[in-house]
Amino acid sequence: MPTPKLEDVARHAGVSKTTVSRVLNNRGYLSQKTIDNVNLAISELGYHPNIVARQLLKTKTNLIGILLPTISDPFFGELASLLEKKLYKKGYKVIIGNSTNDASKEIDYLNQLLSKQVDGLIVGTHNQNIAEYRQQNLPIVAIDRIINDDIPIIESDNYKGGVLATERLIDQGAKNIVHTNVSQKESPMQKRRLGYESVMEANNLDGKTYIIDFDIPITKKLDLLDQIFEENPNIDAIFAGNDTDAAFAMQVAQTRGLSIPNDLLIIGYDGTELIRNVLPQLTTIIQPLDNMTDLAVDILEARMSGKQTKKEYIHPITIWEGTTDKPDYNLN
Amino acid sequence: MPTPKLEDVARHAGVSKTTVSRVLNNRGYLSQKTIDNVNLAISELGYHPNIVARQLLKTKTNLIGILLPTISDPFFGELASLLEKKLYKKGYKVIIGNSTNDASKEIDYLNQLLSKQVDGLIVGTHNQNIAEYRQQNLPIVAIDRIINDDIPIIESDNYKGGVLATERLIDQGAKNIVHTNVSQKESPMQKRRLGYESVMEANNLDGKTYIIDFDIPITKKLDLLDQIFEENPNIDAIFAGNDTDAAFAMQVAQTRGLSIPNDLLIIGYDGTELIRNVLPQLTTIIQPLDNMTDLAVDILEARMSGKQTKKEYIHPITIWEGTTDKPDYNLN
Repeated sequence: MPTPKLEDVARHAGVSKTTVSRVLNNRGYLSQKTIDNVNLAISELGYHPNIVARQLLKTKTNLIGILLPTISDPFFGELASLLEKKLYKKGYKVIIGNSTNDASKEIDYLNQLLSKQVDGLIVGTHNQNIAEYRQQNLPIVAIDRIINDDIPIIESDNYKGGVLATERLIDQGAKNIVHTNVSQKESPMQKRRLGYESVMEANNLDGKTYIIDFDIPITKKLDLLDQIFEENPNIDAIFAGNDTDAAFAMQVAQTRGLSIPNDLLIIGYDGTELIRNVLPQLTTIIQPLDNMTDLAVDILEARMSGKQTKKEYIHPITIWEGTTDKPDYNLN
Repeated sequence: MPTPKLEDVARHAGVSKTTVSRVLNNRGYLSQKTIDNVNLAISELGYHPNIVARQLLKTKTNLIGILLPTISDPFFGELASLLEKKLYKKGYKVIIGNSTNDASKEIDYLNQLLSKQVDGLIVGTHNQNIAEYRQQNLPIVAIDRIINDDIPIIESDNYKGGVLATERLIDQGAKNIVHTNVSQKESPMQKRRLGYESVMEANNLDGKTYIIDFDIPITKKLDLLDQIFEENPNIDAIFAGNDTDAAFAMQVAQTRGLSIPNDLLIIGYDGTELIRNVLPQLTTIIQPLDNMTDLAVDILEARMSGKQTKKEYIHPITIWEGTTDKPDYNLN
């Protein structure tokens, strides 16, 4: 079967070529029924309009959508804020959607942003593959998120971050190290877990990872952290998957009478400027957000002008040496 | 001169009545020139279309815009997150714009959200009066922001919060109390300052307020806080206009060798759930964000169905008693 063309979609959906073009470009008045029919035909035939041709055809809106799993976590707040400032400086306006890590909500927001004729999309959500990302021929850049092979991903070296944190804790004498992470399998945060698990295994230590998803109520997070201490009376270190978990763990540990770093070592992940200045005592792996957002904007612009880009851009991580692990310890 | 009608606007702008109606409802294809001409005519004639009639005419989008001065501050992150969840549960989708406290950027985003056919708008930005808010006949609710007399405002009792914090510091023996606030005159944060100033004056103490605006770089905020200590060698307390300022002040003070609360008392403002759990030692005035966002959604829905609402909704504040002021002090 030959590659389907615009006229095949029109015939299949029982509409004119102009109507298909309008649906593809979100232009002019269309009923929801027509939009649905055309999208169904596109998906049934596996039709892929040429991106460059579409971009030339399409009216530029200079509007960029950002889709995030939460906006109340400082990491995503700082990420969105940096992206917005950099894009605005280049003449774009930015609208932000919050998927709260719910796949159906993410699809809802994705369609919303697409129907608002965004020129491009930056996605930082962590859900399983969502078909909409494949159907839509829109320039997309993912931050810290695997969507599919066509969409470039910008991330920090999560695996190395996991290795570095875990090795550091073991070098300081910790044996019962608990890790926190999220449930989303597509999240590059899983690489932090893989780094942690490989180092634990290489040292013949049992690793244990607890799931604390973003955007669950804070009280629920505190309960989960308390449960970690209940179930692991010999716990001597926590490698938290993000700084919010780490900060809450510090509080829960202190409430339970544990002294940091004497009874318990803690290392976090993200190292936002806010956390480094509000909780400078927290040792944490720093993601270079400034570089990552610079590149995200560049890559998105490259995709918007139809250019090919690499599949993956991995940024080196560094460590912020606080006092939640041994202050006398020297990194090799 | 009689109240201008739709046909007057059409004649003035040199377009048809249908075109004016399209501009008012953001519907159908329109050139930017036509939109500008019609909006100019509306503004020159002082035309005010009937909101209820417009709402009946308008296609519902179930899309709500939120406009904020920053998204990297935990207060606005928590505010946006709560609003989004509550609105989504009621069947709305939410897009967020970040004005970074820049008036021209705010106008840009406002027009962007309006052109995306939002059904309503929740505004938390702090700029001077912006004409666009008067021209557009859109249901709007302001949180912590005075826009104009037609737009209901939802806020915490900022004046009482300022009084409470300042009285508490004076009762604990502080005499050289510095306050931080923002430069925007329309921000209800100014009422915190008024509360502070009235209590200082009543106690024959000299008040001094430093301006630390949202969304300036963190390094700049730290410099400004350091300057406070340089210029006020006898400083014995800080009433910070928000918790971010308070958290940074704690760090700067400690860097300078000051012990909290022995050498310096600190009270913040906002008391988000995040800060109360990450920095529970910070004494702060709590804005009841959960109640405020519940009400914001209710009032917006009332406005969207053309109902009259009150002009101002003030919520009582409470205090979070941490250890950055005297722990032995009892509130009357």
